[in-house]
Amino acid sequence: MHRTYSLRSSKAPTASQLQSPPPPPSSTKSKFFGKGGIASSFRKSMAGATGPELSRKLSQYIKMEKNVMRATELTARERRDVAKQLSLWGEENDEDVSDVTDKLGVLIYELGELEDQYVDKYDQYRITLKTIRNIESSVQPSRDRKQKITDEIAHLKYKDPQSPKISVLEQELVRAEAESLVAEAQLSNITRESLKAAFDYLFDATRELAEKNALIAGYGKALLELLDESSITPGETRPTYDGYEASKQIIIDAENALASWTLDGAAVKPTLSLHQSEYDGEHLDEEAEKEAAEEFAKHDEDTENVSEAK
Amino acid sequence: MHRTYSLRSSKAPTASQLQSPPPPPSSTKSKFFGKGGIASSFRKSMAGATGPELSRKLSQYIKMEKNVMRATELTARERRDVAKQLSLWGEENDEDVSDVTDKLGVLIYELGELEDQYVDKYDQYRITLKTIRNIESSVQPSRDRKQKITDEIAHLKYKDPQSPKISVLEQELVRAEAESLVAEAQLSNITRESLKAAFDYLFDATRELAEKNALIAGYGKALLELLDESSITPGETRPTYDGYEASKQIIIDAENALASWTLDGAAVKPTLSLHQSEYDGEHLDEEAEKEAAEEFAKHDEDTENVSEAK
Repeated sequence: MHRTYSLRSSKAPTASQLQSPPPPPSSTKSKFFGKGGIASSFRKSMAGATGPELSRKLSQYIKMEKNVMRATELTARERRDVAKQLSLWGEENDEDVSDVTDKLGVLIYELGELEDQYVDKYDQYRITLKTIRNIESSVQPSRDRKQKITDEIAHLKYKDPQSPKISVLEQELVRAEAESLVAEAQLSNITRESLKAAFDYLFDATRELAEKNALIAGYGKALLELLDESSITPGETRPTYDGYEASKQIIIDAENALASWTLDGAAVKPTLSLHQSEYDGEHLDEEAEKEAAEEFAKHDEDTENVSEAK
Repeated sequence: MHRTYSLRSSKAPTASQLQSPPPPPSSTKSKFFGKGGIASSFRKSMAGATGPELSRKLSQYIKMEKNVMRATELTARERRDVAKQLSLWGEENDEDVSDVTDKLGVLIYELGELEDQYVDKYDQYRITLKTIRNIESSVQPSRDRKQKITDEIAHLKYKDPQSPKISVLEQELVRAEAESLVAEAQLSNITRESLKAAFDYLFDATRELAEKNALIAGYGKALLELLDESSITPGETRPTYDGYEASKQIIIDAENALASWTLDGAAVKPTLSLHQSEYDGEHLDEEAEKEAAEEFAKHDEDTENVSEAK
């Protein structure tokens, strides 16, 4: 296995790190508590301890993805709580601070909502991976049976080479091998098909969340401009705040931008130095979406998949 | 308080929801366990129960932000675990699946790393908010003192209108009022300055994480194209995988894109329908960064701030 880009021990600082040096590690890190809890560790260690050998690693992977989902869900919930508290604190302040914090709260609440929608999509990705786990589980008995008959024949040939049972077993082995060939082909096809559908869906969801978050951050920065930043001297009063219209318009603009965002209009584009002509982003997106949609339509009809492949 | 855009009960479906309908709620939702744990609830309910009245809501807010940080940190950790497990599962598969999953693992691990860096920045934002909390706490005694003297004077005037203590107290009140004026001006100035610095920093960090995540999702989709998607029949073998060079190049491209990303080159731009001419993004970014940097340099020298304002 080519591991050149699998384990990277140290990395040079990035351009943005050079532009603004990274902050020190946060104060919540490397504490004893809050490491994910018992449930998380339990899922990690128990998954894959039972079930057919072939599907154990993937089973564990699927269980671990549930931990990611729960953690993201928790973040979403905490973020919504924080958004309300920000608005609550701001309410007791002067008009500009009160209005801006309230609107910031709306944006931060939206970050939480988007994370929550992402979790739902993450679940669909996980469910698609289960298709692979199921076919892995179902291929195992066919491998086992082939192995068992092969062992029996070898045993008989050694113990009783003239036994008439040998030819019966050999016929059985031919049938088992045929079945196994079909099973392995199914495994090979379904693994690729579902892997691609699952990750295409996940990456599209990731891209959507990411670009929407970037939009919200942009509108948040625009809101901050409404704060009266001039320094006042003792006894001086600030001019009356006149930003209500502007702040409301920023929220409306943000809502419109989020509501009209589509994958096709994504702003962040990766630059590929290889296969650039082959990789036609838009076309692939459409194809991937179609496949993902099909995949989700049939994810719990695995048996149908199996009979199709036969 | 204008609450028009504070509480939104129901929303029309967005364009991307129409393009691909939202999935059903994830299976991890509304379960009894994993709701954030005792520590989280404890922080939420205990913070702000003590300390000066004025700073209680902000204290609670700052504590709640710690919950967001911990949840994000947990997500980052789970994600890195998942990345390793994906590579581990893939290793036992055919060459194309093995290579692609290993490289997907690298990208997903990177998502975790970026989230971790975001947590460090989130902590800086939180620390900046503490500057406001500290000034709020320090203004409370000056308000209390003014109130106490006012009450004493009223009491004396009622009980013993000829008391010579009244004029002494009145002089004391003038001094207390002067002190209070300074304190309130400091509160007003520092609240705005730190609020803007904190959120500017947070939104820049959010934007960076978001755009980098979107980039990774794009490179992930490119990796998926390397999977041999053709369906094979039983007994047929797949052509030899020749994607090692391409997959390695995608990872190199991804690393380069992440390393050279800067705020100035951000792709996602908010569209503002008001104040467009006033809002010069680039200029504001620079200013905000400078301020944020200054703020962080002095965040634990609050007393210095106070004497400056005097």
